[in-house]
Amino acid sequence: MHDPAFFQDIMDSELKKIQLHDTPTELYDPIRYMLALGGKRLRPSLVLMGTELFGGHYMEAISPALGIEVFHNFTLMHDDIMDKAPLRRSQPTVHTKWNQEIAILSGDTMFVKSCELMMQVKDDVLRNVMSLFYKTAVEVCEGQQLDMNYETKTQATLEEYIHMITLKTAVLVGCSLKTGAIIAGADEHDRDHLYEFGKNIGVAFQLHDDILDVYGDEQKFGKQTGGDIIANKKTFLLLKALEVAGTEELKELKRWLAMKEFDKRKKVEAVKDIFSSLHVRSAAEKKMDEHFQLAIQSLNRVNVSEERKMALRIFSEKLMVREC
Amino acid sequence: MHDPAFFQDIMDSELKKIQLHDTPTELYDPIRYMLALGGKRLRPSLVLMGTELFGGHYMEAISPALGIEVFHNFTLMHDDIMDKAPLRRSQPTVHTKWNQEIAILSGDTMFVKSCELMMQVKDDVLRNVMSLFYKTAVEVCEGQQLDMNYETKTQATLEEYIHMITLKTAVLVGCSLKTGAIIAGADEHDRDHLYEFGKNIGVAFQLHDDILDVYGDEQKFGKQTGGDIIANKKTFLLLKALEVAGTEELKELKRWLAMKEFDKRKKVEAVKDIFSSLHVRSAAEKKMDEHFQLAIQSLNRVNVSEERKMALRIFSEKLMVREC
Repeated sequence: MHDPAFFQDIMDSELKKIQLHDTPTELYDPIRYMLALGGKRLRPSLVLMGTELFGGHYMEAISPALGIEVFHNFTLMHDDIMDKAPLRRSQPTVHTKWNQEIAILSGDTMFVKSCELMMQVKDDVLRNVMSLFYKTAVEVCEGQQLDMNYETKTQATLEEYIHMITLKTAVLVGCSLKTGAIIAGADEHDRDHLYEFGKNIGVAFQLHDDILDVYGDEQKFGKQTGGDIIANKKTFLLLKALEVAGTEELKELKRWLAMKEFDKRKKVEAVKDIFSSLHVRSAAEKKMDEHFQLAIQSLNRVNVSEERKMALRIFSEKLMVREC
Repeated sequence: MHDPAFFQDIMDSELKKIQLHDTPTELYDPIRYMLALGGKRLRPSLVLMGTELFGGHYMEAISPALGIEVFHNFTLMHDDIMDKAPLRRSQPTVHTKWNQEIAILSGDTMFVKSCELMMQVKDDVLRNVMSLFYKTAVEVCEGQQLDMNYETKTQATLEEYIHMITLKTAVLVGCSLKTGAIIAGADEHDRDHLYEFGKNIGVAFQLHDDILDVYGDEQKFGKQTGGDIIANKKTFLLLKALEVAGTEELKELKRWLAMKEFDKRKKVEAVKDIFSSLHVRSAAEKKMDEHFQLAIQSLNRVNVSEERKMALRIFSEKLMVREC
């Protein structure tokens, strides 16, 4: 089996070859721009790894792998409008560089392109691949809506949070792997175990991201830490803190959350101190580990040789220790 | 064969039965709202008529017919954001009633739902139906982009205009009929002739709309005339006028186009006078008739009995004489 770095290279090169019409340029330039912003190409690599896991050749899965990556980038393009994000990967977002109308319509077009790419599979797996893809796409939209609802919601449980990140982030990871499995002709049980592996890895991955945003090594993490705290983002850490805080800590936490003007560094330090006294980091790590273990259990259930599973094991472990 | 009124009733009733998740309500309420705004259900009716034309039962095509209607409504939801339209069918648009973020994401979800509905066809036609649908969806996006480009473009040819409305409006009419034909197992030539019929009817329909907006009977047309003139909309009529106007008329026309503040009625009357002196109405009617004749030629080529074609003939003639 090949490793993710190999697949990342393949995907970067294949993404450049995607056939797009030349005009109207206002529609297609932003798509090319978005796809060229880079990234680890995690999801499409997982499609290819899912195929190899069951003895298929990764070349069979290139087109749907591209489909998943184009879909993912479509969701980012639209999410950036909704979140009013000025930057993505240190570059201007599409609605900033062009305008919002173009970002809506280019995004729509990307979504159609992703469907076209997903469809490039053999007849006998076409319906399965497309059904899973659409089911996942609806869930991703639902996850984004739940995430937007969070901004105005005063109360949210940790369970609701896990549900939100499952939809917004994790199901697409599961879908990627399962798509590969379907293409390779894996049986239903194995597909489902692999999906559960991916979904739980996805949840663990997002929890890890929440932790890194507060406690990550800025150099290794590649961005400034504390962004979530500054933006009052309701991550697992904040929700846990709100849940377990005593009267005094709750008052102090809410004071920082309500503050309109503040010194960013001071707010980050103060909230980190509260997190620290409430042990929310270890609570988040525990939850992350729970999902990681669930993932591993599902991978164990997949009925292929240990040798074949090795790439996915290494991959998932690497994801969990990245840049912290 | 059944008539469009019969199919409109069927579609209104079937649209209410579309399965949507209950939550998040912010995502699904706007979809229900949009689908309940009404309309003639032209496109889905054409899917069913396309199926009946080739001896299929319309029930086979209900789901993809719904898919086309949901897709059409998705494009309206996103177009309304881009066009900053406050009203649709005299009701607040989704981005006005809720907000823009919700209109983006509900629209995205509608698109996924439309794909799911399109997919509910037999295995042997699945790939054909989906390929046509995606090809059309891309073209509709391109058409909307070209339409947006028109707003800032100073010069545009009539040919470019026909190209734009072909993509934005007409290809979905062709796609609707052809989808029905594919489902009924029509051969490739017949499918293509029917597509050309639909596409040209679509162009004629849009030109008719341009004419009605200026010369329609307000009561029959159901909305105030002159809206396109007030908004400087680059319709066939205006582009034709700009093309054929002599120096004096061109100066006068451009003066009205450049005016920031004006009496709406006066502007409509003045521009109509210019149109009148330049005979642009008859030029538009000629172009409309050209496309109508192309449509009829294509329908003539379809290899089924005259009896079966009758419903489509009556339907297309009705479209052309409506409310003028």
